[in-house]
Amino acid sequence: MKLYDSPVAPNPRRVRIFLAEKGISIPRETVDLAKLEQKAPGFAAVNPLQRIPVLELDSGETLSESIAICRYFEELQPDPPLFGRDPLEKARVEMWQRRAELEFFFPIALAFRHGHPAMVEMEKPQIAQLVELNKPRAIAFARYLDSELAQRRYLAGDAFSIADITALVATDFARPARIAFPDELAHFARWRAEVSARPSASA
Amino acid sequence: MKLYDSPVAPNPRRVRIFLAEKGISIPRETVDLAKLEQKAPGFAAVNPLQRIPVLELDSGETLSESIAICRYFEELQPDPPLFGRDPLEKARVEMWQRRAELEFFFPIALAFRHGHPAMVEMEKPQIAQLVELNKPRAIAFARYLDSELAQRRYLAGDAFSIADITALVATDFARPARIAFPDELAHFARWRAEVSARPSASA
Repeated sequence: MKLYDSPVAPNPRRVRIFLAEKGISIPRETVDLAKLEQKAPGFAAVNPLQRIPVLELDSGETLSESIAICRYFEELQPDPPLFGRDPLEKARVEMWQRRAELEFFFPIALAFRHGHPAMVEMEKPQIAQLVELNKPRAIAFARYLDSELAQRRYLAGDAFSIADITALVATDFARPARIAFPDELAHFARWRAEVSARPSASA
Repeated sequence: MKLYDSPVAPNPRRVRIFLAEKGISIPRETVDLAKLEQKAPGFAAVNPLQRIPVLELDSGETLSESIAICRYFEELQPDPPLFGRDPLEKARVEMWQRRAELEFFFPIALAFRHGHPAMVEMEKPQIAQLVELNKPRAIAFARYLDSELAQRRYLAGDAFSIADITALVATDFARPARIAFPDELAHFARWRAEVSARPSASA
């Protein structure tokens, strides 16, 4: 088993945090995104969609999509549960993981990809309007999260989950995307400090 | 239990097809998107993110996000399995459901939302460049799907799954988005005819 990884991209970080929480260690191979290795012809056999992370199984089969890779390990080793335990918890975790991804991670990623000079070669064309549209979306979602985190410890309830991993990775990715969150979001800041202090955050 | 639904939007259709495949029937309430009812103050208690579908439980708790709603029912009633059966199948289904959503459904939805005159009030501002960028992305993914569907019956393997539901809903949504798929994609066309012929497709 092998994980195609990158120390600079946010999606592989989701998988690394997930594996650290599970206490699972697997070999990794770094894909150099600065050299566009994920777009090189040789990588097409690993993932024709030219994205990382990718998990290569011993059979040679490859699994892409961070959340699919995480779910594979959740099913192999359910403890600690990071996708919820019963039907209702699983639905809440799925809802919050998706909200964190679609309404927070993606707007931040779009602001980065369409606004950062380092992405000129990767994102053609860069559309300045998308930066201006997505920055306030990310901030609005942080504000909404703040109101939710006033009511409970983690995004999907009292237990840390994959939804927190997605939201933490997105929050940290806001810095290179040049998005600053308002100082008054005290519950959001409390949650951020708490999840950032877990050993997995530095995985 | 009640489902907030719309006969015209693609996401609620995903849930209706899923429930039809499971043989589950629940009361529905139509939200009039043409009147922007999902943005009315009264709807904020149902989903502050102003989206449908939403599942309201008997406890009053609400679950949004189509895939979270589907997963709730999958966990309550595992047969027939639509998210896979074992760890590897579940990972493959998750991977293909995400690919179908992120690389196919979303580009088609963006082309629709930024290009269709009916969306002028919903999508402010409409960005013409996003229509031109996303139409070829959707067609490229259909071409990729065609090559994959040459090798197996459904997106994630030999069994129909939530990934096929997302891909079917996206394929049909290409019409109002004014995206035409190339005629030569014979395997894609075979798959489309097959999944469209299932009774659930008209749910």
